[in-house]
Amino acid sequence: MVPRHPRLDPLADRYAARTHGMKTSEIRALFSVVSRPEVVSLAGGMPAVTALPLDAVGSMIGELVSGMGAQTLQYGSGQGDPRLRERICDVMALEGITDASPSEVVVTVGSQQGLDLVTRVFCDPGDVILAEGPSYVGALGVFQAAEARVRHVPMDDDGLIPEALEQALLECRANGDRVKFLYTVPNFHNPAGVTLSEPRRQAIVDIADRYDLLVIEDNPYGLLGFDHEPMRALRARDDQRVIYLGSFSKTFSPGLRVGWVLAPLAVREKLVLATEAQVLCPPSLTQYAVARYLDTQPWREQIKLFTELYRERRDATLESLDALMPPGTTWTRPDGGFYVWLKLPHGLDSKLMQPRAVGAHVAYVPGIGFYADGSGREYMRLSYCYPEPDQIREGVRRLARVIEAELDLHSTFDAVDTGTFRAVGRSDGSAARTVVGPANSDRIED
Amino acid sequence: MVPRHPRLDPLADRYAARTHGMKTSEIRALFSVVSRPEVVSLAGGMPAVTALPLDAVGSMIGELVSGMGAQTLQYGSGQGDPRLRERICDVMALEGITDASPSEVVVTVGSQQGLDLVTRVFCDPGDVILAEGPSYVGALGVFQAAEARVRHVPMDDDGLIPEALEQALLECRANGDRVKFLYTVPNFHNPAGVTLSEPRRQAIVDIADRYDLLVIEDNPYGLLGFDHEPMRALRARDDQRVIYLGSFSKTFSPGLRVGWVLAPLAVREKLVLATEAQVLCPPSLTQYAVARYLDTQPWREQIKLFTELYRERRDATLESLDALMPPGTTWTRPDGGFYVWLKLPHGLDSKLMQPRAVGAHVAYVPGIGFYADGSGREYMRLSYCYPEPDQIREGVRRLARVIEAELDLHSTFDAVDTGTFRAVGRSDGSAARTVVGPANSDRIED
Repeated sequence: MVPRHPRLDPLADRYAARTHGMKTSEIRALFSVVSRPEVVSLAGGMPAVTALPLDAVGSMIGELVSGMGAQTLQYGSGQGDPRLRERICDVMALEGITDASPSEVVVTVGSQQGLDLVTRVFCDPGDVILAEGPSYVGALGVFQAAEARVRHVPMDDDGLIPEALEQALLECRANGDRVKFLYTVPNFHNPAGVTLSEPRRQAIVDIADRYDLLVIEDNPYGLLGFDHEPMRALRARDDQRVIYLGSFSKTFSPGLRVGWVLAPLAVREKLVLATEAQVLCPPSLTQYAVARYLDTQPWREQIKLFTELYRERRDATLESLDALMPPGTTWTRPDGGFYVWLKLPHGLDSKLMQPRAVGAHVAYVPGIGFYADGSGREYMRLSYCYPEPDQIREGVRRLARVIEAELDLHSTFDAVDTGTFRAVGRSDGSAARTVVGPANSDRIED
Repeated sequence: MVPRHPRLDPLADRYAARTHGMKTSEIRALFSVVSRPEVVSLAGGMPAVTALPLDAVGSMIGELVSGMGAQTLQYGSGQGDPRLRERICDVMALEGITDASPSEVVVTVGSQQGLDLVTRVFCDPGDVILAEGPSYVGALGVFQAAEARVRHVPMDDDGLIPEALEQALLECRANGDRVKFLYTVPNFHNPAGVTLSEPRRQAIVDIADRYDLLVIEDNPYGLLGFDHEPMRALRARDDQRVIYLGSFSKTFSPGLRVGWVLAPLAVREKLVLATEAQVLCPPSLTQYAVARYLDTQPWREQIKLFTELYRERRDATLESLDALMPPGTTWTRPDGGFYVWLKLPHGLDSKLMQPRAVGAHVAYVPGIGFYADGSGREYMRLSYCYPEPDQIREGVRRLARVIEAELDLHSTFDAVDTGTFRAVGRSDGSAARTVVGPANSDRIED
């Protein structure tokens, strides 16, 4: 018999190895906090879906069910609806991917599932994945579930640093590590807010070729640029070594959970088998909804409308930060997407500071959530995608006050020199030395 | 440089161990065949969704988007919509699960994802899963992807045989196998069409208790009985050792991909972390659609309508089989669900016969798809859920002719005694001796 004490898990010795490492992400942990109305949340990455023409989209989806219920309510193919896969190729052409065939596309339940599938297809426990430092928190969750080891590669304001990537590859080779792929978010990085520059794109692809490196290009934000046309995707430069992940979560709706993977045919075959084992097929209704939306609604104009709205919120964020943040605070200046990556003044710790921020009714995501190695305590992610500009300004004001109060507290503690605060807060910068954040000055020249 | 020859996969040495074992299921392999209009397909398991009130469902879903787009098009919680989880508890109460709390429910992308999550949370490579022989093909795909080993436990017309389960457990114990759980479909089994009898339900739960065995109860068809009220679920008898998988695919719509897992809280926590790593959250729109459907539409009456329709098709199937099948052919007699499990006359092989059946414009799923160990060649699964009764009768007529032609051919080969045909076809019954199918006479008495 197993013990039935309610606080003990009788199955604790029964779980798979991967399960023991699973933990709530820093973002999900905040869920109950950020939904309180008095809190200004700069934490979540929720798109502004109410900017969609809801009546038109509602009629469109209603008609899909009434008129095509035999298809939209029925099982579909594991690879995804053929019509949607065609339209996905049109969308990718906007970023220079003009040679993609619908047969190379697998529709997924958000690009999150796409990344999970790619990781399951390629990674055994102990394999190494290279990823920017910081990196998308949801990707780190996938890699952890696959029992892969993540090695972060530093970024700066121009994105991933090619020399640092090459150095990481050489070190992995020397260690005998099996590097399965580089995971990168080249456009309007989550959480760093930076974009991989044009010359670096070619440099990364060249390195991939030289080192026979597979690249997973995760691109949910690429069409949400404020200042220029979309940049040419890595996949547009290499159709054999780059696997591309796309999503309609930010250009249309995240609640439909429609994303995709574009992969060479041999890999695509494996991905279809993997997704059939995981979900049989993606939901038919949501796929038809996206395909019909692209067929009948002014989706390019809608993306422009979204970017205008996000640009206004980005401006409110940067203006407030410029006006209010105490000296020693630095941040990135995104020209698209949802996020600013902020570095606290020397010695402060965003995770330790979090309860006080929530007490002051402002929420952010602590930087440690975006590193697999526990570093990042001096950073935080601020999202401007969801709150209105006035809320953003109020949120930044509250945050500035919290940081100032922390600085006061910190200088008091420094005066009495307990040492403890420093150690927990890594105020010696030890984390920053091993993994360079984008706003850090340890930039490798190139 | 990697070779670029189009027929070689340059990444062949790069995949994870689990990927090498992935193969197309016998059902998915038939996809292109069964969609040809001249073929009567008794292969697929597609529900009769056009029997739904499509206009009403269409209006309902359209209004959900127009009126509640801020919720239905937005990200939701990883565990699933709270209102839907409440309604799921109401649905489960129909099968005697009256103590379930919405907090113990995780909404999944079909129950397929639920099974995948449970398997990922519990199974390391090499772990053993007990499953009926035959077993649901989609479950075998999940277990294979987890690199688990499946040990089949025989069934008969009353479902899984408790004595055989106990024997399997003892043998696994003697072998030092780590048995992670029993996977079972107690109601209107896919593919066997049989239902676990009332006394055996208690016997299975008692064995689970005695051997400290976790049971995964997969129940997509439980409400689709033709002759009596739903039977009491295994989960209703044991809330600690039974993890229950449910689905709206057969009671409402498979194209929405809404299923669920009911699990003790400690397990539920792990499942939520696993699903967040896999898909972030299930689609919001489809969850709201199901919850609203349960709130506003006559869903119990709709299930009655479905069962009437399936009963008529089951009758057409059994009457045609009784009238037309050659001697030596046997089959199960389902009183609910979608499937008949047919055993061919001695010496015939359903996989070898398949091209001739397709040539005669009838499709079925060969039995080997439902075993992890390559057995089952003498069986096939016939689905009556989708074709109209007249099509079913025509399909069975064609199938009977194909079997008769095979018998003729077989007796000719027997006469010249080449031996080859027998070996490939396992006409010596060797497969049946190790794993007993439901129509087999090797039934253990109980």
